[in-house]
Amino acid sequence: MDRDQLHLGRTYARARSFFPDQTVHSVVDGEQQTLTYRDLFARVDRLAHALRELGVQPGDRVATLGWNHHRHLEVYLAATWTGAVLHTINVRITAAQVAAIASDARDVVIFYDEDVADLAIAAVQARTPAVVPLVCFGSAGTVPPDGQDVLDYEGLLASQSSDPYTYPELGESHPAATCYSSATTGTPKGVVYSHRSQVLHAAMLSHVDTWGLGRRDVVLPVVPMFHVNAWGLPFAAIAAGATLVLPGARPRPELLVDLVEAFAVTLVAAVPTVWSDVFDVVRRDPSVDVSSLRLAVCGGAPLSRALIDQADRLAVPLVHSYGMTEASPLVLVGERRAESNLSDDASTTRRLRQGRVVPGVEFRVVDDAGGDVPWDGASIGELWLRGPWIAEEYPGDARSASAFTADGWYLSGDVVTIDRDGLVQLVDRQADLIKSGGEWISSVDVENALMEHPRVRSAAVAGVPDERWQERPWAFVVVEDSFTTDDDLRRHLDSRLSKFWVPDRFVRVDEVPLTSVGKFDKRALRASAATLQAVE
Amino acid sequence: MDRDQLHLGRTYARARSFFPDQTVHSVVDGEQQTLTYRDLFARVDRLAHALRELGVQPGDRVATLGWNHHRHLEVYLAATWTGAVLHTINVRITAAQVAAIASDARDVVIFYDEDVADLAIAAVQARTPAVVPLVCFGSAGTVPPDGQDVLDYEGLLASQSSDPYTYPELGESHPAATCYSSATTGTPKGVVYSHRSQVLHAAMLSHVDTWGLGRRDVVLPVVPMFHVNAWGLPFAAIAAGATLVLPGARPRPELLVDLVEAFAVTLVAAVPTVWSDVFDVVRRDPSVDVSSLRLAVCGGAPLSRALIDQADRLAVPLVHSYGMTEASPLVLVGERRAESNLSDDASTTRRLRQGRVVPGVEFRVVDDAGGDVPWDGASIGELWLRGPWIAEEYPGDARSASAFTADGWYLSGDVVTIDRDGLVQLVDRQADLIKSGGEWISSVDVENALMEHPRVRSAAVAGVPDERWQERPWAFVVVEDSFTTDDDLRRHLDSRLSKFWVPDRFVRVDEVPLTSVGKFDKRALRASAATLQAVE
Repeated sequence: MDRDQLHLGRTYARARSFFPDQTVHSVVDGEQQTLTYRDLFARVDRLAHALRELGVQPGDRVATLGWNHHRHLEVYLAATWTGAVLHTINVRITAAQVAAIASDARDVVIFYDEDVADLAIAAVQARTPAVVPLVCFGSAGTVPPDGQDVLDYEGLLASQSSDPYTYPELGESHPAATCYSSATTGTPKGVVYSHRSQVLHAAMLSHVDTWGLGRRDVVLPVVPMFHVNAWGLPFAAIAAGATLVLPGARPRPELLVDLVEAFAVTLVAAVPTVWSDVFDVVRRDPSVDVSSLRLAVCGGAPLSRALIDQADRLAVPLVHSYGMTEASPLVLVGERRAESNLSDDASTTRRLRQGRVVPGVEFRVVDDAGGDVPWDGASIGELWLRGPWIAEEYPGDARSASAFTADGWYLSGDVVTIDRDGLVQLVDRQADLIKSGGEWISSVDVENALMEHPRVRSAAVAGVPDERWQERPWAFVVVEDSFTTDDDLRRHLDSRLSKFWVPDRFVRVDEVPLTSVGKFDKRALRASAATLQAVE
Repeated sequence: MDRDQLHLGRTYARARSFFPDQTVHSVVDGEQQTLTYRDLFARVDRLAHALRELGVQPGDRVATLGWNHHRHLEVYLAATWTGAVLHTINVRITAAQVAAIASDARDVVIFYDEDVADLAIAAVQARTPAVVPLVCFGSAGTVPPDGQDVLDYEGLLASQSSDPYTYPELGESHPAATCYSSATTGTPKGVVYSHRSQVLHAAMLSHVDTWGLGRRDVVLPVVPMFHVNAWGLPFAAIAAGATLVLPGARPRPELLVDLVEAFAVTLVAAVPTVWSDVFDVVRRDPSVDVSSLRLAVCGGAPLSRALIDQADRLAVPLVHSYGMTEASPLVLVGERRAESNLSDDASTTRRLRQGRVVPGVEFRVVDDAGGDVPWDGASIGELWLRGPWIAEEYPGDARSASAFTADGWYLSGDVVTIDRDGLVQLVDRQADLIKSGGEWISSVDVENALMEHPRVRSAAVAGVPDERWQERPWAFVVVEDSFTTDDDLRRHLDSRLSKFWVPDRFVRVDEVPLTSVGKFDKRALRASAATLQAVE
């Protein structure tokens, strides 16, 4: 029997009963709005009625192309609670990619923010027949794209009954959401999350040894709601009865700091570049008070020593976290500053590691021979994962065969070390490791070493084919002045890296190309290198 | 397919890998022993080999009659990990009750502490054929009871292979443990806990909004390991990688205070009478330092205002918790002192409530007509519970029909109110509520009011048949001097209770009779009242 206890609907019903006065603060069109949970769930009921009116059935995919705001949150809740499948689409990918994803997912309705209407049109046109309803989150002034009828979100809600909605009781394995992983290699791959997986992932985020998200927290997800469900924070915050602060479209760092101050935010989750920008704002204005922060989650890309030092100077409790679409996403949580009795420098070295595997997830670090590497902090292997919120397939996608084993392991493609305390450090993507003269070079380590140079703003390293050594590293660097020479950079690295790890070339760029989820686009770098090699 | 992710074995394997240097401190025969998790799990492997040698098969019941020490913990781990079913038997019940329980459970091996050997013999003799192996935790000097061969626990372990044991992979619904609920009415009733239920219960104990049990905690379960698995603490502590401090047989309050100081204990779980004794020790000796405590869990019986006041004066963070055998046990967690902006007195009133239903458990408060009572803090109803760690039956017991509904609700028999913030307060056991002149009287409320009298050490109240009023309350009081009169007590109550709640009689007793789990024995009180009525 498929049980129904681990169902997101149970967590929503509990939040609604216990925390009616709890609040969600949302920035929409530059203005702050505040809803209580009571208001929020009344609107979710109306949206559930609307979804039924639109013909959405359990199992149907409900797509969103939206920023972090309360309307997007309402779709999260209504779609999953009615048994539909929430399908958040990244608004930073191309219209062609959106079309491919919407077609693959067979979305039956699409909610979108006005500023990405072109993507919504692409999504609709990819569906056959193209009769998918479009609902614009913007409440007024929407221009119907390409002749298609567009529903107005607020108008849709207003036209519904205010009666409570009777939500279905569905099994734990019923799908709750689907996400397509970033297209760092090839076309996007979809994973499907069950209700069970998301309930357990949310509970894990409330474990005192991970993020400890509780009802006294004020949670600001800067990570977009179209990116692995904002790392699971909306589900976990509602389950815990926490306050949510949703910063709207493309939030500037000044706004984020304002929100932290205004709502005494305790938990922020963002990528390193956002933190760097936020720290700039805080440093510039000594009157800013961000002391309410108890946890500053930094994920999506490796932390740098410089960023930790900045955080420490500003007393911001920055903690490394690591995950991926296939893992809902949280897998590793790093150490906190005060956790060890080490010197600041040794402590920082530990905090640079991505962290320990969270409770509930099984893992292996597997070497080329298929064995487990020793916990010595040096031996490298691929991180394998298994557990209730780890995907077991890309449904209907032939690439499942190479990414998942028959007994449920997900082969992450991330190459890591693990030290004697169980702290895992990401060495590189398997595809980005550079093989030079039979030895491995971690592009990530070279990047981090480069970024410790005071004049280097950003640096990405990729392997470039080499006749003699098979591959050699090239660096693509953003340097803050025109006086820093290649020799300066080389001297800087000589004291930090093995000689053969030092890149053969330092290519100056205005910015490092990024993928749609903000990671260095190594494929683009390798293409640039090939072009450079060809013209020389 | 029955999944295997939510299996206690996974939590043990994780603890063994991640926290080999973590420690378990144990008091055995008056001496402290310290084991690392590394040592502990090596011994668990040996015990697993021994269980196989003894012929224990998956699903077989492994009984214990033991106090809180590392050997008992090893049986917890080895029995559940090998797929056997841990069956802890209360050492405070009669030999006849033990025999009935062991017979019902069909225990195949019995581990026991020497000082309760008579109970172990009773358990063996109840089994047919009586060939159940007995293993004495005491390492030497055991007298074979009644001609039966007795194995020596340490000898048994020493004779086993030191090879790692290969634990089976079993489904989540495989039984992990069985407990018999206290016999407050009728004979004990057994419930069975699945691996899934115990993994989820343990994870819930680590939720930051319940007890937040984490790897930095030092956990001292005073609640016996034969009482609902020490409220789930051994499973949760191992899953979290916490330090455990096990205080041995019949710990004196002085020892408990010593252990808190010696190991900087952060979390203690005990019943109110133990806390009262501990506070006496701390108050008498100003040099005692218990400031390491971050959570002083008080459960098993209602808290009194006097106990909260004592805790506050000593800065001990006492928190009410409530549960029952049928719920693994944790269901309600009370408020902490600093949680509200109320005056100390209003805050204490809130902290006297048993608390909020923990995440993961569904509940109803059901009135006589089968409807839900309003959240007004006054209307009374029976607490119904449903969820992953709530029992759904007493297997093979006809009493299941009246305690469980077909759709999975457990009817707790506890009558409660719930206030607008969702705080539940126990009013009484349904069977102990007193019906006087068509109105309800809570025996618990009258007891609490009596115990606020400075000279009343203990007080229990029961309903006694009355021709005119149907029932009337009688109080059985332990008074500290001989000068306090019935009129004194009556005057004390007049200012605190409705007039018709004041007991008709105040019977002086030397001590209030308790059940095997330390609750007031209301059946014995009603019998005493009947005797008194008969002789008058």
